[in-house]
Amino acid sequence: MLTPSRAVQRVTTDRAAVHAVLDEALTCHVGFAAEGRPHVLPTLHARIGETLYVHGSTAARLLTAARPEPLPVCVTVSLLDGLVLARSAFHHSLNYRSVIIHGNAEYVLDSAAKGRALAALVDRVGIDRSTQCRPPTSKELAATAVLALDLDAESTDVALKARTGPPNDDEADLDSGYWAGVIPVRLTAGSAEPACDLPTPSGLAPSLR
Amino acid sequence: MLTPSRAVQRVTTDRAAVHAVLDEALTCHVGFAAEGRPHVLPTLHARIGETLYVHGSTAARLLTAARPEPLPVCVTVSLLDGLVLARSAFHHSLNYRSVIIHGNAEYVLDSAAKGRALAALVDRVGIDRSTQCRPPTSKELAATAVLALDLDAESTDVALKARTGPPNDDEADLDSGYWAGVIPVRLTAGSAEPACDLPTPSGLAPSLR
Repeated sequence: MLTPSRAVQRVTTDRAAVHAVLDEALTCHVGFAAEGRPHVLPTLHARIGETLYVHGSTAARLLTAARPEPLPVCVTVSLLDGLVLARSAFHHSLNYRSVIIHGNAEYVLDSAAKGRALAALVDRVGIDRSTQCRPPTSKELAATAVLALDLDAESTDVALKARTGPPNDDEADLDSGYWAGVIPVRLTAGSAEPACDLPTPSGLAPSLR
Repeated sequence: MLTPSRAVQRVTTDRAAVHAVLDEALTCHVGFAAEGRPHVLPTLHARIGETLYVHGSTAARLLTAARPEPLPVCVTVSLLDGLVLARSAFHHSLNYRSVIIHGNAEYVLDSAAKGRALAALVDRVGIDRSTQCRPPTSKELAATAVLALDLDAESTDVALKARTGPPNDDEADLDSGYWAGVIPVRLTAGSAEPACDLPTPSGLAPSLR
């Protein structure tokens, strides 16, 4: 039930395909162990070359104990592409692309590297937005935690798993009369809502991703 | 940087608000430890009353070792609501609602309970869809793994965290001339794509969620 059919489900390590998913998804889920329990925190990520940067503020309190040791993490980046309605309950599924990265995350301590990572994170919120806002002060930089994951490291394991295409019904069900097909879904942006305290509440459009 | 401002970020355990997030989000991320490493798997979930059911097939191989012991998990259900563009890089943020559940998941072994859970999971893909398709055979039921998490259990911890509203710029930045505001985002459905092997490729619309 809801098992993606093998015919259309693929696991790949193709780096360009992995990058495309990392660059399209706005958020990731970071899994780690703390106090003997699993934790999964949603946060923003950005890729520069073969390094994935993860905004760590929400996790900072939990992770403080681990600093400055590398932290074993699983970073999962998922895009939901469609709802797959089959003739049988069993073959209902979802179309998706997920990158699952196992590796050791390190805190970014070098302030130049941290500045570049934070600019890349701000650029995920709006294209080139890091050049269209006040840059961080050194105090603001210090107040922000960023984790880096080297996709090329020997200890890193990266896999992209995807399901695409129509439902994969059993032949015996094809004439059952039930509707079958895919409802595509995607994250879409609505109209910009300017802050009410803009001095000139204009229609100035930010560069959206 | 990208730190949600405290004024608009709230943590609540209000059960109706928690249910609303669980029922709106189509997918969750399940975190657990296996072979000494954290794992985070995206999957479909469905709620019946105070029980959250998680489709476990993708995790089945990893989790087999844990069966039939309860498995400590962190199930995180996240909805991205907006991109928050502030005058300063530091106050850029995301609007979101996330439910984070720490608890012990149990495999659903009772076949009546499993049938109800699987029907609820199919109903997430389309409203009442479980009554508009061929129900599972006993073999299909047996082939599907479902995990249950009791939201009311003493060992379960449930929290909803959300950020809403406009950017929260520092007063000194208000006249900096940079645009500030929110770009709302949401998951939207496209037009249904009927399977090409439907005997009558009609416009029959499935009931979408």
